[in-house]
Amino acid sequence: MGKTVIRHLLDSLKEIGVTDIFGVPGDYAFPVNDAICNDRELRWIGCCNELNAAYAADGYARIKGVAALCTTYGVGELSALNGVAGAYAEHLPVIHIVGMPKDVIQRRRGLMHHTLGNGEFDLFYKMTAPVVCARTILTPENALAETDRVIKAALTRKQPVYIGVPGDFALMELGCASLTPVPGPSSDPGTLAAVADLLAARMCKAKSPVILVGSLIGRYELRDAVRALIEKTGVPFTSMFMGKGTLSESHPNFIGVYNGRIQACDVREYVEGSDLVLSLGTVMSDINTGAFTANIDRSRDVRIQPDRVEIGPAVYPGVYIEDVLAALAAKAAKGKARVPFKPAGLGKPKGKTADPITTGYLYPRLEKFFRPGDIIMAETGTASMGLVTAKLPEDAVFFNQTLWGAIGWATPAAFGAAMARPDARTVLVTGEGSHQLTVQEIGQFGRFGLRPVVICLNNNGYLIERMLCEDPSIYYNDLAQWNYSELPSAFGMKDWECARVATNGELDKALTRAGKAKAGVYIEIVTDTMAASDMALALNRIVFKGGGWKA
Amino acid sequence: MGKTVIRHLLDSLKEIGVTDIFGVPGDYAFPVNDAICNDRELRWIGCCNELNAAYAADGYARIKGVAALCTTYGVGELSALNGVAGAYAEHLPVIHIVGMPKDVIQRRRGLMHHTLGNGEFDLFYKMTAPVVCARTILTPENALAETDRVIKAALTRKQPVYIGVPGDFALMELGCASLTPVPGPSSDPGTLAAVADLLAARMCKAKSPVILVGSLIGRYELRDAVRALIEKTGVPFTSMFMGKGTLSESHPNFIGVYNGRIQACDVREYVEGSDLVLSLGTVMSDINTGAFTANIDRSRDVRIQPDRVEIGPAVYPGVYIEDVLAALAAKAAKGKARVPFKPAGLGKPKGKTADPITTGYLYPRLEKFFRPGDIIMAETGTASMGLVTAKLPEDAVFFNQTLWGAIGWATPAAFGAAMARPDARTVLVTGEGSHQLTVQEIGQFGRFGLRPVVICLNNNGYLIERMLCEDPSIYYNDLAQWNYSELPSAFGMKDWECARVATNGELDKALTRAGKAKAGVYIEIVTDTMAASDMALALNRIVFKGGGWKA
Repeated sequence: MGKTVIRHLLDSLKEIGVTDIFGVPGDYAFPVNDAICNDRELRWIGCCNELNAAYAADGYARIKGVAALCTTYGVGELSALNGVAGAYAEHLPVIHIVGMPKDVIQRRRGLMHHTLGNGEFDLFYKMTAPVVCARTILTPENALAETDRVIKAALTRKQPVYIGVPGDFALMELGCASLTPVPGPSSDPGTLAAVADLLAARMCKAKSPVILVGSLIGRYELRDAVRALIEKTGVPFTSMFMGKGTLSESHPNFIGVYNGRIQACDVREYVEGSDLVLSLGTVMSDINTGAFTANIDRSRDVRIQPDRVEIGPAVYPGVYIEDVLAALAAKAAKGKARVPFKPAGLGKPKGKTADPITTGYLYPRLEKFFRPGDIIMAETGTASMGLVTAKLPEDAVFFNQTLWGAIGWATPAAFGAAMARPDARTVLVTGEGSHQLTVQEIGQFGRFGLRPVVICLNNNGYLIERMLCEDPSIYYNDLAQWNYSELPSAFGMKDWECARVATNGELDKALTRAGKAKAGVYIEIVTDTMAASDMALALNRIVFKGGGWKA
Repeated sequence: MGKTVIRHLLDSLKEIGVTDIFGVPGDYAFPVNDAICNDRELRWIGCCNELNAAYAADGYARIKGVAALCTTYGVGELSALNGVAGAYAEHLPVIHIVGMPKDVIQRRRGLMHHTLGNGEFDLFYKMTAPVVCARTILTPENALAETDRVIKAALTRKQPVYIGVPGDFALMELGCASLTPVPGPSSDPGTLAAVADLLAARMCKAKSPVILVGSLIGRYELRDAVRALIEKTGVPFTSMFMGKGTLSESHPNFIGVYNGRIQACDVREYVEGSDLVLSLGTVMSDINTGAFTANIDRSRDVRIQPDRVEIGPAVYPGVYIEDVLAALAAKAAKGKARVPFKPAGLGKPKGKTADPITTGYLYPRLEKFFRPGDIIMAETGTASMGLVTAKLPEDAVFFNQTLWGAIGWATPAAFGAAMARPDARTVLVTGEGSHQLTVQEIGQFGRFGLRPVVICLNNNGYLIERMLCEDPSIYYNDLAQWNYSELPSAFGMKDWECARVATNGELDKALTRAGKAKAGVYIEIVTDTMAASDMALALNRIVFKGGGWKA
C-alpha cells in the first residue's frame, strides 16, 4: 500500500521538527489519534480540555518555534478556537489538525453527534477562517500539495493553520498528482539593497541610536541575528513588554524595558530622545505601549517588520526581516559598545518580615528568585505587569500574552513551555482569577514528571479589573474562594512543596525553599485586595485621570 | 436622561423572566457588567471561565426555558463558542451578550488588546453566525428594534442569539425611532385544521398507537400539553434518550425509553410494531437512535416538529407545534389508558458487598438513589448511557447533551441547573475524563450555597472512546491521575461529604449517607478500566461487528 493521507501529514510534521502533538482525542479524530500514538517518533500529549491544549501548544511554540494541536470535530475545535486566535494575534505557528467525520458521512448530511443537526459539515471550517493564516480539508487528491502549502504558510507567517482530515480520507492512499513545490517568499533584491543602504547610513549618522526589540524577533527565531547586529554596532537596546527577555537582559548593551510614559523614566527619556530608534518586529498595541503613551517621533523611528521596512512615512514592502537583518549586519559599521546606563531592576524588597506582603516586597523578591535560564510565564494582569521592569538573569526568557490577553492562558502555556524544554526551570506567575480558568492543567506537570514553580497571587478577585472599572468593589470581580495550595495534591502531585504565604517573611522562606526544591513547587501568595503592581496603578491613573486611552 | 441602550436591553431581558446572567467580566464588557450588578432585580453569576459559563447557561435554560450569558470581546466570546454551539444544536435559548470595544475605537481600527492586531473588529461577530439563530450589534438607533427582534428569535427558535454591545453605545440614550412590533410566527389556519383532522383520524383508527416524546417538547415548554393529550387519549408513551424524563417516568402510561435495537427489547417491539407512532419534537440523531438502529416504518411514523408536521412522505409546513398539539388535543377522541407494560427499570443491583464495583451493581444502585424531583445531569459517554433505561422517580428530570455531545458539558450545566432550581436536589453523573475538562466549576456550588450530589466515575480514562476506537489500550485514552475526592476541599468546600469507593459495599454506604447528607456530596466511584454500561457495549458491537453506523 502507498502512503496514506495521515501518514504523509505526520511525516511532513516530523520533517519540520514536530515531535509532540497536544490535544484531546475524539471519535472523529481516531484515525489521526491512532496514527500519532502508533508513531514512535511522535508523542501524543493529552490535555484536560481543548482550550488548555491550544494554550499549551502556544507555550510550546514560543520555545520551539512551532507546535501541533489535534482536536476532534465541532466540540473539540470550537473549544480550542480562542487559543488558536491567541496564537494568531501573537504570531505562533500552531498547526491545528481537526479530525472530521468521514467524507461519506458528510455527503449523506447525516444527523450526527457533534453537528448542529442541520446537515452542514463545513461550518466550523468556515468559522475558523479569520484566526488562521491558511486552511485546508485534505483529500487523497489534494493532500500532497495542500499539506505542503499549509505547513509552509504557518512557518512563513508564524501563525496558526487549520488542517481538516476526514476520517475515511485519512486512511486512503495519496492520489498520484505530483507536487509542484511552492517557493517560500524571497525579498526583492533591489529593494533589499536600497533598504540596507538607507538603514546603514542612518545608523552610521545617528548620534544616539537605540534598538527596540519586539516580540516578533523571537517568533521569527532571529535572536542570534539581532544580537550579532547589536554586538557589531555597539548600539544599546531596549525591549518592549511583549518581547521582554527575547534577548538576554544580562547583555551589557541592554538598558531596560521601554513601556511608554508609565514606567522606567530613564529608558523612556533615552528612547524618545534618541535620533534613531531601530524597531525590530514590534507590535505597538495598547498595553504594549503603556496605553499608547509611547511617543517615538515618526521621523526617527525606523521599523523592520516581518514583510516590510518602514522608514519615516515610507514603506518598503517585499523585503523579509531575516534578509533585511542580514543585509544590514553586513553593511553596518562596526562600533564600540555604547551603554548609557544599566537597567535598574526592581531593587531591594521593601517591608518587614512580619508584615503582610506588599507589592514593594513581592516583585523585587520574585526578581531575586529568578535564575539564569528560567522560563518565566507571566499571566495577563497585574501579576505580569509587576515584572515588566524586573531585570531577568542571564538567558532567562519571559513570555506573556500582551495583545490577545486571554486570561487563563499562562497556566497551560507554562505546561507547554515546560514540555518544550524540560531541562529548564519553568516559573509560572499568575493571578488566582486567571488561574481559575484553566487550573486543571496543573495536573499535567506531575503526569509528565515536570517540576515547575507555580506562583499564584491571591488578591481576592480580578485585580486588574478592579483597577480599570468604575467601582473596584463591584461584585463581578469577586471569585469563589479556593484553597489553592491544596490543588496540586488533588490533581495528583503528592510530592510537591506547597505553601500559602501572607507575610514577607513567609514568602521569603517559601521562595528560598523553592530554590532548592527537588519536586514541583506551588506557592499561594496572599495579598491585600488592592495590592496592584506599579504598571497596573499607572494604567488606573491613565483611565481615570488621563482621559482614557487613545486608540 | 432617557433610557440607555444597556438599560433597555436588561429591561427587555427582565420582561421575559431573566433574573440571572452567567459570565466572566472583562474590560470591554464593563458597561454591561456594571449595569447588571447595579440592577437589584438581576444577579451576576461569575463563572470560572467562559466555556463553563456557557454550559451553566445551557443547564439553566433546560430548567427555566431561557438563560443569559455575558462575555467580553474576543477572548471571552470565543472561549464560550463551543458552549453556544451546543445550545444551538440542542435548542436552548441562551442570550449571549458580548461587551465590545467602543464604537469610536473600532472606527479608529486601533491596535487594541483582545484583537487580532489587524484593525478588524467584526470578525468574531461574523464567526458566530452559524451557531446563533439571530445576531446584532446594538447602536442607539437600532437598539429598540434589534433588541426586540433578536430576543424574540431566541424565544421562537429556542436557540442562542448574539447581542454585541459597544461600550460607548451601551451608555447612550436610545435613538427616537419608534418600534414597529414584529408579530411572532402563527400557524396557517387552513393547514392547522387539515393537519389536526388528519392526526385525530389517524389516532382514532390506530389499534396500538404510541406517543414518542422527544427533547424539543421540554425546550418548547409543552410538557403539560403533551401530558394532557396522553391523558385524554389514553395512548401509552415512550421517550428518546435525548428527552428522557421530559414527562415524569412514573406516569402510568410510560412504557420506557426507545433506543432503537440496542436496548429495551419490549419497548422496541411495541414501538416498531405499532400502527401509529406519534413523534413529538424528536431528534433522530446517531446516538439518540441507537446508532441509527431505530426502525420505525415511515408510513406509520407521524412527526410533529416545531414548525411543521410530517405524515408519511407529506410535509405540512407553517404550523407550529404548540398550535398543532392544542388543535389535536381538542379533536382527539377520549380513550381509556392503554398500558401494554411497565418499564422494567434496571432491577436489583447485582454483586457481593466486598466485590469491586461492576456496572451490574452501579447503575441499578444509582437508579435506587434517585428520588422524586431530582435534577439528574448526565455527562456524555458511558456514564449517561448506563442510565438510559433507568426508571426515574416521580417528576425527576434528566438531561444530557446527546446531539452536540461535548464532553465537559455536564459539570457546569449541573451548576446552572442547580442555580435555576436551588430547592431541588441536583445529581451530576460524570465520567472522570469529561469531568477534567470543566472541573473548576465545582467550586461554584459551594460559593452559591448549593448542595448537589456529584458522582464521578473513575474508570481510568476515556471509556467511551476505548469502546469505539481500534485499540482500547492506546494511550490517548489515558488521563492524569487525580485524587478526585480531594477536589471539593481544594475548591473551597470544607463541609462536603467526600468519598472514594471501590467496592459495592462502599458504594452502597456512600450513597446511603449521601441520601441523608445536609451538605454537598462528592463520590468518586472507582471501577475497572473497561467497566462499560450496556449501551456503550452495544455501540461497541455495532461499530466492530455490525459494519459501523449508517449516516
